[in-house]
Amino acid sequence: MKRIAVLTGGGDAPGLNAVIRAVTKTAINIYGCEVLGIRDGYDGFISAGGVIPLDLAAVRGILPRGGTILGTANRGNPFARKILRDGKEVVVDISDEVTAAIKKLGLDALIVIGGDGTLRIAMELGAKGVPVVGVPKTIDNDIGGTEVTFGFDTALMIATEALDRLHTTAEAHHRAMVLELMGREAGFIALHSGVSGGADVILIPEIPFKFESIIRKVRERAEGGAHFSLLAVSEGAKPLGGQPVYRRSGDEIYTPRLGGIGQEVGQFIEGQGFEARVTVLGHVQRGGSPTAFDRWLATRYGAAAVRVAAAGGFGCMVALRNAEVIPVALSEALAVPKRVDLNSDGIHTARGLGISFGDE
Amino acid sequence: MKRIAVLTGGGDAPGLNAVIRAVTKTAINIYGCEVLGIRDGYDGFISAGGVIPLDLAAVRGILPRGGTILGTANRGNPFARKILRDGKEVVVDISDEVTAAIKKLGLDALIVIGGDGTLRIAMELGAKGVPVVGVPKTIDNDIGGTEVTFGFDTALMIATEALDRLHTTAEAHHRAMVLELMGREAGFIALHSGVSGGADVILIPEIPFKFESIIRKVRERAEGGAHFSLLAVSEGAKPLGGQPVYRRSGDEIYTPRLGGIGQEVGQFIEGQGFEARVTVLGHVQRGGSPTAFDRWLATRYGAAAVRVAAAGGFGCMVALRNAEVIPVALSEALAVPKRVDLNSDGIHTARGLGISFGDE
Amino acid sequence: MKRIAVLTGGGDAPGLNAVIRAVTKTAINIYGCEVLGIRDGYDGFISAGGVIPLDLAAVRGILPRGGTILGTANRGNPFARKILRDGKEVVVDISDEVTAAIKKLGLDALIVIGGDGTLRIAMELGAKGVPVVGVPKTIDNDIGGTEVTFGFDTALMIATEALDRLHTTAEAHHRAMVLELMGREAGFIALHSGVSGGADVILIPEIPFKFESIIRKVRERAEGGAHFSLLAVSEGAKPLGGQPVYRRSGDEIYTPRLGGIGQEVGQFIEGQGFEARVTVLGHVQRGGSPTAFDRWLATRYGAAAVRVAAAGGFGCMVALRNAEVIPVALSEALAVPKRVDLNSDGIHTARGLGISFGDE
Amino acid sequence: MKRIAVLTGGGDAPGLNAVIRAVTKTAINIYGCEVLGIRDGYDGFISAGGVIPLDLAAVRGILPRGGTILGTANRGNPFARKILRDGKEVVVDISDEVTAAIKKLGLDALIVIGGDGTLRIAMELGAKGVPVVGVPKTIDNDIGGTEVTFGFDTALMIATEALDRLHTTAEAHHRAMVLELMGREAGFIALHSGVSGGADVILIPEIPFKFESIIRKVRERAEGGAHFSLLAVSEGAKPLGGQPVYRRSGDEIYTPRLGGIGQEVGQFIEGQGFEARVTVLGHVQRGGSPTAFDRWLATRYGAAAVRVAAAGGFGCMVALRNAEVIPVALSEALAVPKRVDLNSDGIHTARGLGISFGDE
Repeated sequence: MKRIAVLTGGGDAPGLNAVIRAVTKTAINIYGCEVLGIRDGYDGFISAGGVIPLDLAAVRGILPRGGTILGTANRGNPFARKILRDGKEVVVDISDEVTAAIKKLGLDALIVIGGDGTLRIAMELGAKGVPVVGVPKTIDNDIGGTEVTFGFDTALMIATEALDRLHTTAEAHHRAMVLELMGREAGFIALHSGVSGGADVILIPEIPFKFESIIRKVRERAEGGAHFSLLAVSEGAKPLGGQPVYRRSGDEIYTPRLGGIGQEVGQFIEGQGFEARVTVLGHVQRGGSPTAFDRWLATRYGAAAVRVAAAGGFGCMVALRNAEVIPVALSEALAVPKRVDLNSDGIHTARGLGISFGDE
Repeated sequence: MKRIAVLTGGGDAPGLNAVIRAVTKTAINIYGCEVLGIRDGYDGFISAGGVIPLDLAAVRGILPRGGTILGTANRGNPFARKILRDGKEVVVDISDEVTAAIKKLGLDALIVIGGDGTLRIAMELGAKGVPVVGVPKTIDNDIGGTEVTFGFDTALMIATEALDRLHTTAEAHHRAMVLELMGREAGFIALHSGVSGGADVILIPEIPFKFESIIRKVRERAEGGAHFSLLAVSEGAKPLGGQPVYRRSGDEIYTPRLGGIGQEVGQFIEGQGFEARVTVLGHVQRGGSPTAFDRWLATRYGAAAVRVAAAGGFGCMVALRNAEVIPVALSEALAVPKRVDLNSDGIHTARGLGISFGDE
Repeated sequence: MKRIAVLTGGGDAPGLNAVIRAVTKTAINIYGCEVLGIRDGYDGFISAGGVIPLDLAAVRGILPRGGTILGTANRGNPFARKILRDGKEVVVDISDEVTAAIKKLGLDALIVIGGDGTLRIAMELGAKGVPVVGVPKTIDNDIGGTEVTFGFDTALMIATEALDRLHTTAEAHHRAMVLELMGREAGFIALHSGVSGGADVILIPEIPFKFESIIRKVRERAEGGAHFSLLAVSEGAKPLGGQPVYRRSGDEIYTPRLGGIGQEVGQFIEGQGFEARVTVLGHVQRGGSPTAFDRWLATRYGAAAVRVAAAGGFGCMVALRNAEVIPVALSEALAVPKRVDLNSDGIHTARGLGISFGDE
Repeated sequence: MKRIAVLTGGGDAPGLNAVIRAVTKTAINIYGCEVLGIRDGYDGFISAGGVIPLDLAAVRGILPRGGTILGTANRGNPFARKILRDGKEVVVDISDEVTAAIKKLGLDALIVIGGDGTLRIAMELGAKGVPVVGVPKTIDNDIGGTEVTFGFDTALMIATEALDRLHTTAEAHHRAMVLELMGREAGFIALHSGVSGGADVILIPEIPFKFESIIRKVRERAEGGAHFSLLAVSEGAKPLGGQPVYRRSGDEIYTPRLGGIGQEVGQFIEGQGFEARVTVLGHVQRGGSPTAFDRWLATRYGAAAVRVAAAGGFGCMVALRNAEVIPVALSEALAVPKRVDLNSDGIHTARGLGISFGDE
């Protein structure tokens, strides 16, 4: 390997910089490779100044920092790019142009750090001959093929701390405290942090809930002398027979907005005669310094991606399985998005603790 | 002093338990006094089981814990108590009943920990002969007579951490990140945490803002190459000539809700062609373990309140002035609520850093 | 199952209370079982007041708290108990007495939460007919049969935060900062936190080091313009051909003391003309509130232990493998203690980043 | 003002970068001033590359970061500089050379951020005609003339968290946990964090202690059923009639070393038949990201220093008094170093809680 490039795509996740740093250091120290950074996702290949050199100095001090020194773009899909033509937004396929730009750089490998969308594009570019290696990134933990990805643990830490803080206030004030958390399609953040933060009710996209079931739990607790309840709610949670209430704006990143499900749940509870308060943590969950766990995993992922590239394992992403970091075919990993398994020991454990999923 | 009592009223604030502990330990260790805890604010005096003994064992281990072991009630004003009569809510004055119950306990002092509302009731009970000593409590820092109260530093810490986390995401994604913070009438939390967290725009109740002024700042930054902005917004911030948009439900505690000012600001920014995301921290700011600063201050307050009581300084509250804890007449402290002084060095400092208050 | 008991043994680890809570809630909610808590390890079976009932109220609020509500004893091995006889300490086998006491309680299962020593005793009691199920606990991560145990992630978080803080001071002051960490036999804490905290040198028990190698790294960095170095050192690290310098006091728990390896390394560096400072984190690593990761794992372990007991899986401990919690025979898990694998991707990753293990 | 310079001297303290940033932004935004950064303390004036321009870009992103982007030197006293002459270290006065270099730069003001030693040099340079304004910095809080300085609150936060973590382990294991903290001459860190972290014994330099008094407290607690004790010990604490045991290496910064007072106290306790463990927090207390409190104070200090310079207030340092930042003559501030006042309400509060200072 003489020259590799690295890019970050999609939403922010704590640990992106740790991966970039590990890729750069490993490639230089072990393989004597030149490393290029691509700015703002795939866009960087076709933008002025979009390709920058990465040396050891460029990655110094970035390990504990949130964000990505390379930037990221949310609308950078070269296979379906939105452009303005005659004042109207149209979608065009510029993947040939991007592929040509990549080939012109003479890369031995392109390391793509991103979520489902970004990795899917990588796979398609691979089909056009680009030597891609993926690094899975998702704070929602919804990518298949790997036990976990970096960013998730930091999100859990933040959500759990919020629950800890809400808990004491709930108890002192005899209230239901609702915490709306990220997770449009997958409820891992609400499930794990709800269990870790002592929630009484956890609502996730995988289990449609009944409002009556929630209020029954709140009432049951009050009758038992616990005049407060803590609810961890995925933004994608939806009532039985209903639809999720979040509004999507078409990009990969979701914004908690006016009238999310947290608000709906809070208002329902108030309507039943209990006091309720709602917190929408939003993007606080996906920024800032990564936890030790995420730094360790992100660093291993970055180093492993370079090793996989050196071994010619293109079309793969790195993955954590059985405490080891191994390559997994992108096609396998992306085949089925990961969701909370309703028969997992995590769900059984939560039910055994007396936590309601709103489906009783 | 042979017997004193302590109660907590109003909203939660980190440090309440530290005050209760200091009151109890100081009264027992130094004055050999009996200590009673009154549950759920003034209500405890007239409820079954509302008066409990507090000994050293009762306060063991509570120093670092959020909430209050005594509970608190939000509607416990004995001078204007809401009760149901013939199915309708009416307001009655039960202060004589409460005063009689207090007198029956034979208290040498009643230590009242609370915010503006709770302390005002204490002052009125004092006029009826109850030997009260106040301990000011407000996460908003809006009580006069004292430089600061406990709870405020913890709220700042949480708000500043949230800004730190939003900062990296804002930067990576070229976005405006809006953080709505507590502060209906006073903007101290947004001002202090905004400066400490590197906000570009701070909106506070004391300075009515212009929407154009906000967008000018965001645009100015983008033109200078900083394609992101961080906004710290008090829930009580209001546009020039407009009204604050929060909805009050009549109790002392405010809940961020549907359509708060943070959402309004975020939607305005999006309407101007920039991406924006909104986080509503809510009650996460007022619960959980207090900072070292708040524990130290709360502990000193609790101990000082007992000393003030022993010295017969009734009708006073303890206050921090010039690094010392001293008694201040409740009438003086409550005369004028504290607001951000627009000529303070804090405001000048913020403006000098280039922060916009939306009034340029 | 009608009646089970739970005990904690050995050193403190964040998450013990989370396991106790999960055991209790699961046993009561799912199996309608009576739960007993045994105080101060195996000693509780033969002490007055050593067996207490655990109901839902007893475990309320303990999830986020460090320590163990049951207490633990370091010298509680019933097979080799130290007692005073005629003024001299002698070792006696009182396991028959303990076994008899256990049998008298009519337990359907005894859940033992502990490290290598405590679990080994459980296995031996199992051979005497006690229906034991183990829950592995070690902040050092040195128990076989499982990918990880609770407590380890919290230790990493604390060690990594310390490295973050030392880093900025090292840089500002042109110094070598040495952080001595726990790990007598296994270097996982120093390895993981060293990588996550950006250490330049990591010394672990598994890789004997050369002092010259350390100083070469420090000098090399200084010559390259980085006038500071960060060293993460296991307490059990030892120079090539030498012995670990910590002093053991015979109990399971090690205390950092006068003249540990951290001090030796610091003094060597100063002797070579560089400034050095040493921090000994000690027990700060093993106390206090567990991370979200550790709470989730500890809770799953506790619930799984009850399920394993209900299924009659005695002689097993619960273990994390491939993201699932499964039972593993104690005999298998304890056969070989876990050590850092010198061919693991973790070690390769660290070397690729340019980290020295002192063996070059 | 057309041109000002800023330097940092002495030990690290969280908030240095926040001051540098506020100085730079305020001077540029408000006064249209050129700002120079002096590297490695006063040394920068006479070193190649020691004077660098500071513009808005140079201070971007440094607010939350520990350390100082300007570096600092511990031996940079120009009035008593150690140099090698004929192989021997001699002390020479190079202050005329430094003064000449400063004058050559044509500075309208030199802002000096430092502790007692660094500010004293500033005062002496002022006497030679250099227009100095000081910013007090000390994590020990031992500078007179101001209620508090930045860095102290962060040190307290870290020390208090450590006590929180040690507390649960102490309780679970029936042990005395000793935490050695910074503070050679002043005991503020141990006093404040000891009270905030629930210590049972606090040893500070201002109150010589008796070993018997310590053990009496430990025994008394054990007899009362609390089989553990928490001790917060200043590194400069000394037994009655004895000497502090730390070893000074001649520079401003002290390093906890082999055989500090924490170890002595721990060993004494073990010698009396109780188990004890010792943690030496060391430089972890003085690095890393500042708390919200310290960022706010440091930022106000930096902005105020520029305003004081613009108003011609040379020979002053900025100080916090009565919640305001005001200029105070360096001669006044440095006249008497600040120590814990044995008649302060802090000490009375601690004694009232039952905390022993080892002098009973």
